[in-house]
Amino acid sequence: MTRAASARMAGLRERLGGFAFGGDYNPEQWDRPVWDEDVRLMRQAGVNLVTLGVFAWASLEPEPGRFTFDWLDDAMDLLHRNGISVDLATPTAAPPVWLSQRHPGGLPVMEDGEVFGFGNRLHFDPGSQIYREHAARITTKLARRYSRHPALAMWHIGNEYGPLSYSDTAAIRFRRWLQRRYGDGASGLEALNDAWYTRFWSQRYTSWEQVAPPEIPRSWSNPARRLDFARFSSDVLLECFLAERDIVRSVRDDIPVLTNFMRFYRRADYWRWADEEDAVALDIYPDPGRDDSRVAAALNFDLMRSLRGQPWILMEQAASAVSQWTVNNVKPPGRMRLGSYQAIAHGSDSVMFFQWRASRGGHERFHSAMLPHSGTGARTWREVEALGNELPSIAAVAGSQSRAQVALLFDWDCWWGLETTHGLPRNDFDYPAIVTGHYRPLLEAHHAVDLVCLDSDLSRYKVLVVPNAYLVSDDFVAAAKRFVAGGGTLVCSFFSGVVDPANQVRQPAYPGAFRALIGGYIDEYWPAREGERFAVRFADGSTVDADWWQESIQLESARATAWYAGGLLADRPAVIENQYGAGRVVYIGTRLAEEALRDTLLAAVRSAGVAPVVDEAPSFVEATRRYTADAEFLFLLNHSDSESAVVPLPAAGTELLTGSPVSDAIPLPPLAVAVIRMSTGS
Amino acid sequence: MTRAASARMAGLRERLGGFAFGGDYNPEQWDRPVWDEDVRLMRQAGVNLVTLGVFAWASLEPEPGRFTFDWLDDAMDLLHRNGISVDLATPTAAPPVWLSQRHPGGLPVMEDGEVFGFGNRLHFDPGSQIYREHAARITTKLARRYSRHPALAMWHIGNEYGPLSYSDTAAIRFRRWLQRRYGDGASGLEALNDAWYTRFWSQRYTSWEQVAPPEIPRSWSNPARRLDFARFSSDVLLECFLAERDIVRSVRDDIPVLTNFMRFYRRADYWRWADEEDAVALDIYPDPGRDDSRVAAALNFDLMRSLRGQPWILMEQAASAVSQWTVNNVKPPGRMRLGSYQAIAHGSDSVMFFQWRASRGGHERFHSAMLPHSGTGARTWREVEALGNELPSIAAVAGSQSRAQVALLFDWDCWWGLETTHGLPRNDFDYPAIVTGHYRPLLEAHHAVDLVCLDSDLSRYKVLVVPNAYLVSDDFVAAAKRFVAGGGTLVCSFFSGVVDPANQVRQPAYPGAFRALIGGYIDEYWPAREGERFAVRFADGSTVDADWWQESIQLESARATAWYAGGLLADRPAVIENQYGAGRVVYIGTRLAEEALRDTLLAAVRSAGVAPVVDEAPSFVEATRRYTADAEFLFLLNHSDSESAVVPLPAAGTELLTGSPVSDAIPLPPLAVAVIRMSTGS
Amino acid sequence: MTRAASARMAGLRERLGGFAFGGDYNPEQWDRPVWDEDVRLMRQAGVNLVTLGVFAWASLEPEPGRFTFDWLDDAMDLLHRNGISVDLATPTAAPPVWLSQRHPGGLPVMEDGEVFGFGNRLHFDPGSQIYREHAARITTKLARRYSRHPALAMWHIGNEYGPLSYSDTAAIRFRRWLQRRYGDGASGLEALNDAWYTRFWSQRYTSWEQVAPPEIPRSWSNPARRLDFARFSSDVLLECFLAERDIVRSVRDDIPVLTNFMRFYRRADYWRWADEEDAVALDIYPDPGRDDSRVAAALNFDLMRSLRGQPWILMEQAASAVSQWTVNNVKPPGRMRLGSYQAIAHGSDSVMFFQWRASRGGHERFHSAMLPHSGTGARTWREVEALGNELPSIAAVAGSQSRAQVALLFDWDCWWGLETTHGLPRNDFDYPAIVTGHYRPLLEAHHAVDLVCLDSDLSRYKVLVVPNAYLVSDDFVAAAKRFVAGGGTLVCSFFSGVVDPANQVRQPAYPGAFRALIGGYIDEYWPAREGERFAVRFADGSTVDADWWQESIQLESARATAWYAGGLLADRPAVIENQYGAGRVVYIGTRLAEEALRDTLLAAVRSAGVAPVVDEAPSFVEATRRYTADAEFLFLLNHSDSESAVVPLPAAGTELLTGSPVSDAIPLPPLAVAVIRMSTGS
Repeated sequence: MTRAASARMAGLRERLGGFAFGGDYNPEQWDRPVWDEDVRLMRQAGVNLVTLGVFAWASLEPEPGRFTFDWLDDAMDLLHRNGISVDLATPTAAPPVWLSQRHPGGLPVMEDGEVFGFGNRLHFDPGSQIYREHAARITTKLARRYSRHPALAMWHIGNEYGPLSYSDTAAIRFRRWLQRRYGDGASGLEALNDAWYTRFWSQRYTSWEQVAPPEIPRSWSNPARRLDFARFSSDVLLECFLAERDIVRSVRDDIPVLTNFMRFYRRADYWRWADEEDAVALDIYPDPGRDDSRVAAALNFDLMRSLRGQPWILMEQAASAVSQWTVNNVKPPGRMRLGSYQAIAHGSDSVMFFQWRASRGGHERFHSAMLPHSGTGARTWREVEALGNELPSIAAVAGSQSRAQVALLFDWDCWWGLETTHGLPRNDFDYPAIVTGHYRPLLEAHHAVDLVCLDSDLSRYKVLVVPNAYLVSDDFVAAAKRFVAGGGTLVCSFFSGVVDPANQVRQPAYPGAFRALIGGYIDEYWPAREGERFAVRFADGSTVDADWWQESIQLESARATAWYAGGLLADRPAVIENQYGAGRVVYIGTRLAEEALRDTLLAAVRSAGVAPVVDEAPSFVEATRRYTADAEFLFLLNHSDSESAVVPLPAAGTELLTGSPVSDAIPLPPLAVAVIRMSTGS
Repeated sequence: MTRAASARMAGLRERLGGFAFGGDYNPEQWDRPVWDEDVRLMRQAGVNLVTLGVFAWASLEPEPGRFTFDWLDDAMDLLHRNGISVDLATPTAAPPVWLSQRHPGGLPVMEDGEVFGFGNRLHFDPGSQIYREHAARITTKLARRYSRHPALAMWHIGNEYGPLSYSDTAAIRFRRWLQRRYGDGASGLEALNDAWYTRFWSQRYTSWEQVAPPEIPRSWSNPARRLDFARFSSDVLLECFLAERDIVRSVRDDIPVLTNFMRFYRRADYWRWADEEDAVALDIYPDPGRDDSRVAAALNFDLMRSLRGQPWILMEQAASAVSQWTVNNVKPPGRMRLGSYQAIAHGSDSVMFFQWRASRGGHERFHSAMLPHSGTGARTWREVEALGNELPSIAAVAGSQSRAQVALLFDWDCWWGLETTHGLPRNDFDYPAIVTGHYRPLLEAHHAVDLVCLDSDLSRYKVLVVPNAYLVSDDFVAAAKRFVAGGGTLVCSFFSGVVDPANQVRQPAYPGAFRALIGGYIDEYWPAREGERFAVRFADGSTVDADWWQESIQLESARATAWYAGGLLADRPAVIENQYGAGRVVYIGTRLAEEALRDTLLAAVRSAGVAPVVDEAPSFVEATRRYTADAEFLFLLNHSDSESAVVPLPAAGTELLTGSPVSDAIPLPPLAVAVIRMSTGS
Repeated sequence: MTRAASARMAGLRERLGGFAFGGDYNPEQWDRPVWDEDVRLMRQAGVNLVTLGVFAWASLEPEPGRFTFDWLDDAMDLLHRNGISVDLATPTAAPPVWLSQRHPGGLPVMEDGEVFGFGNRLHFDPGSQIYREHAARITTKLARRYSRHPALAMWHIGNEYGPLSYSDTAAIRFRRWLQRRYGDGASGLEALNDAWYTRFWSQRYTSWEQVAPPEIPRSWSNPARRLDFARFSSDVLLECFLAERDIVRSVRDDIPVLTNFMRFYRRADYWRWADEEDAVALDIYPDPGRDDSRVAAALNFDLMRSLRGQPWILMEQAASAVSQWTVNNVKPPGRMRLGSYQAIAHGSDSVMFFQWRASRGGHERFHSAMLPHSGTGARTWREVEALGNELPSIAAVAGSQSRAQVALLFDWDCWWGLETTHGLPRNDFDYPAIVTGHYRPLLEAHHAVDLVCLDSDLSRYKVLVVPNAYLVSDDFVAAAKRFVAGGGTLVCSFFSGVVDPANQVRQPAYPGAFRALIGGYIDEYWPAREGERFAVRFADGSTVDADWWQESIQLESARATAWYAGGLLADRPAVIENQYGAGRVVYIGTRLAEEALRDTLLAAVRSAGVAPVVDEAPSFVEATRRYTADAEFLFLLNHSDSESAVVPLPAAGTELLTGSPVSDAIPLPPLAVAVIRMSTGS
């Protein structure tokens, strides 16, 4: 599968001659004369790939079984004549009104019990048979008609898969899913009762028919039931993707098939999904109104790359502002370009936008576009055009790989465990923020980072960072032990290893899973009071701030490296270190202030012998490398809009965007990007 | 129609001998002996008009078809015997429980999908046929029984029309309404598809049966659909009013028929409604807990006057505190009197209250009343009594008109465009607050202001102020051009003229509608970051604060008069001015701080040759004039509770409340009111 | 009834040899070998009573009519063999899934109209006949099987009764309840119409079938209807308790039967409930994250004692943290012990916990337990074990009584009046916080306080404190008058005596009920503006802060003792005092700052001749006494975790926990507890 996927993506790369550049194109919103201007301007801007048909179901099948492909034929032909390839979408993310009205049972039921009706998008119950049949029909029609069209370069299945449903249909499929997980019949039900700990609060099931999605109110429902429902909800969505993927692949199997993921999206376990795609694709809209949104962006980019360990597709970004938030800030001049190169620096092989031309009407009429309402005189158009014409200068980068020695755990089971169930010592965990907090110092210190999940192979890394991994599997525990015993460094932060995959507290507690690794146990978790802060004293006498959480740690084989400087836990360990086999474990039992967490992490990384991408650069400069068999590319991005930097280079090379040779150091004005092909290959 | 309305209102004025003074009277809540005390005290307080029967349906028709008019007969007779006229209400704002229980389909369905049940009031679906039939029946009965009763002076249809319904009934009527707007059959449907831009997100309709009110969740639904649903919801309510109005008028057509409006009420387009009334009536409850509530009150008063260009009826206010808010502050001594004269100063021909006597029970038992729970010893009673006995001294004012040279746009289409649809560059517009922000400096500088809508005749004004008019019609654009070309001054603030009445972005953008007028275009809208402030430098070198919004303006024929002093738009225009025909346009591209907006507005007004009502007075003194054919009345109101003022007078006259002659200047102690009949007529 | 109850409780005390010590025990969650460890550790910790079966319905009746008592037989036998008594619960607080699925009509309908489904607990509609039948069946089975089991010491009916339902079933029972209150037939309906003041807003009922629970939205519904619905909701729950109580008592009537109450629980009128119990039992979870939670705890303890005027049962508390809040703080070392003795000091005859052993799974897996996840090495276990072994040293205290001369009104009718209805001058009253505000100074000054309700006998007290008693009955007014006329001192704070039990404003107002008592009337209530503060000047010239509320008081027989020092009510009375018969009334018309309220209350208490429990002790030391026929016990508890105190003793005695003789004074280190048997008996 992976090899076939690589071949398909190599084919795409070859076809496009390097990077993909383009965006969603919705010709069905415009009169035919506009199309000619569109393709002319696309060529002017260097567009080589557009996504067609994402929300075109009603335009393709205005009434059940009546298909209107003429306009799409024309659009495909026109694009092909102009040398622009097509990423053709199945339009199944937005069923036509006739489907919703004839089959209201195909609409999803939301968490509050209301039906999510026609009028928005994603108004389908992923478990609905009737929806799936109609989706399969239009997909089959499209596959048969366009699979051999010369413009076709990629299949785009659905869009931003996401609906969650608590419907009766969901109940039926949930039951089947549980029977696959726990076995069916009476013994399976008994296994379910055990896993869900139904002896608590009289929740024992005596028949499979009694099992259903969490009921209203859902906040206090059985935590194992909620967890399994989150897993199921990801899987039932994935089934929708797979069904359409298999249809298009059955007609032609040599072009990539994928769907588009979203930033920090909790409902779909992208690790499971990525295995089924030819490449990972991401839609991302970092908030230009927040100075730190580039950190979460970088993390998501690294995650996309890590999901398959391959280059990925930046499928959607905004040319400037979006329109869905309360306040939608524009991307100031230079920011869109910088963000585009940031994606490439972290492994993207494309720069794509939503969307080509701004819509006159509809919910997203003020969402910026490559070609905005104010036309080709607009700043954003000029920036888009310039970028499209600049990208070919780094075409050699396309397809190149990344390498990292630091792994950071980002797993959906951990996420669901912390956020979808209740009854924790604190119930305000924000898992993406926690992981981002651990990622930021590594990024700012110019370390290459891979994201890993509970099932990942850890053997290639020197350092493993595990932030607040409340729920872990036995396999992960074993893998982590092998990793450390073999000489690896594990940095683990508080409230980790607490429960098993059924959300049951591991015994003996705490932390059931990691006790041997951290060389101690926790008598009690001590969430901090509202606003409480406490001093932590390190061995060197320095004192730092911490807040939010404490643990009363009992040392076994570990030794403390920092202690609480006051309060009820005064002189008790706050950070501990343990030798385990040939490796070591640093366990952080509190929420250290940003600088202290940074120092602790970087000390561990340094002593594990991991070198940063560049030795010397300000934290606002991002540095990454990509590698091919015979070349090495250094990316340097200055994220400051006011400060310049001069970054010493490890070797001479050529800056590809300017074509200039560089040697000792390179100056980076505000918002500057440098892509240096290093003279010393890989 | 208008002439007949004027005649009816003149008849009422004549009957009452000047101002109406009184309130809602609910004798059905009290035993018969209390009534005698009521009328005695009414006479003592100068009451000449009471509103009967507003929520009396269950008292008049306790069971379907069984009518109990005896008590109302008695009340009418008693009032008549005591020389008190009656504003008789149709009781249809609160259907009896038997109607709600027999016909639950007549209950409205709220935005969240829940049925709004019996137990409150306004629990009717305005589209419900069965509700309308029952409402027509009781209205007919009342009309036949009381039209010739000598106490009858006015018909009060329903109360505070407001229910919004998303029911199936609403769907049917909404479809019919759309067919009237877009045409029926296939071509109408195609026009609807075009107007609603249904090619976006696969929303195309292929049958009228598919069209329905916005579905849950409604926040992201099609913006044109939401807009049309807002228009429809106003119209379907209006149908309820019209049906009852026509019934009472068919029996007797020489007395006024109206309903009562509310302060800043988004659900009903009062411009359309006002055309159908004999006079506009307002219920208003300015929050005594907020120092600035007098500004919004004045704006609403001016709006009420402008809706028909006639004196209006202050139908409900509180003698002191209300009871519906979290904290209900009392009106301190003197404030009720001041607010009453403020209404008159802005064109009211009445001072009416909710309600005459405080209810012992029910939801509003702590809502203050003319006659409070603590009786005639109470402060509020004494103030009510004094006011009622003072009003006759200004009887000559009743029926007089107002004149203004400044017009301020306040239009429901603009409001709905900004607030009921989503996906704007910012989604936190507060249209009433925006308009109030533009009104306040005019009020404080003592300028007379008319409110206008998109359909108003602009020819009588010198200055037109257009605050954030996101959505405008082609007719308005043409009228605005004629207005300016003919020498008028237009002051227009940011994000105006952007979309057409279908909520589609006008092309070329931005601002599609006003580009020629403002002499430039906007490349991009730049909403400000949370908390961001920026300096704006004026031509005279002064620098002021602005926030919330910026635009990157490209000048064409206009010239800049203020620039951003820093930031990414440094030295780009913030305020521009354009000569257009014989007139000029000032376009304000940001949210100027209060003083800067004031200076900009007042400079424009001044240079347009508009004179204030008085030349010299502190901003806390309100000044207005009313005119009859042969008299001119100057109102001066001191809204400060601590500062006195002395206001120079343009001419000598007589202060009517005291009967004293005044000449050069008049002193105004805190909370003082002066009504001066000027010696120089109009 | 009361005598029988006392005998039953005396039997229990004798059986346990003093205090009950133990907790909820859920052996059904654990494998059989764990049980042996459980009982071993229970004995080690001095456990003598455990509550079995609270949520065991599904374990006892896994399918309708199939009962599985074997495990419970084993558990009862095992406990008995180990000398541990059993408080056996009917498991009816958590119906099995089969009941919810077969009879969804038995599920409650929440305030928002949604059905509260299976998956949590308390998912039963208290009015459901089918639920009641199934509850009666399992209760009967248990009663027959275990009534004569030697381990059985107490019956525990249901758990934390609380469900509220707006279902059709509720409507039927509500109607019957109203018919019992107002009479049935037409005259009863007329009485209902009068009481509910249905002439307001057209709410008149003409048939009993029209009467129903408050509809959606409920916020603006008829205030008398809401009030009666609150009363009904408490009563319909009580019926569920009574039905099960009567079943177990019919089999054996010599052991106590009770259920467990909650802290400040608005839905059930515990005064009515307490009459039906053999003893009052309380579940309480003071938030360790708030420094002042000990005050509300003490108040609830005093309330529990006052409900029956007898010792009560602390049925559930946490050994350390709970898990249901956003942040769940631990009880620091020593706090659990201190809190346990605090309960005893205020009349508890037990120290019980939820739960014995921490659950591995389920919603409360992180709720602390006597035996925590981290086992017998844990701090909390050590503290539990120590406490259990310490308690026998004060066994003589069990069964002893309390005495108070100060009564503080805490009544559910007052509560419901202030909080469940709307339309008050302010709508943010927090009744428990108000009463706690009046209780705190009494507690801190070491006064013994009884709580009383509107129906209590006041004759035994010297001082009656009435905080914000908006709604009072005529009987209470008469009793209060007798109390004061007879020489008692009444301290009453603002907005008291305003409405009658139908929520109708008493006439003449205000305060209809207390006018004669306070010797004045209130012209108008003046809620304060947001954030407004005002100075109050006392007769001695001192000035204090007040906020939130003012009243414009008109003196009749009273004299003012404090005045507003500024503002619109400057020099008007803020606090007044009235002689009434042989007694006096202090009426406080504003919300005095904490210290001023304290001084006012304590001055009244002092001048009424009430002596504190100890003469001299810091406010952070709590002091109470308990009495038997021949002994007197003084409790001293130091709630500070940093300050020590030395408390002078009125007489010599023996400190029971240490067995040491004490005389002049006793030192109390932080968190210390002393229980002194005074040499001078009672």
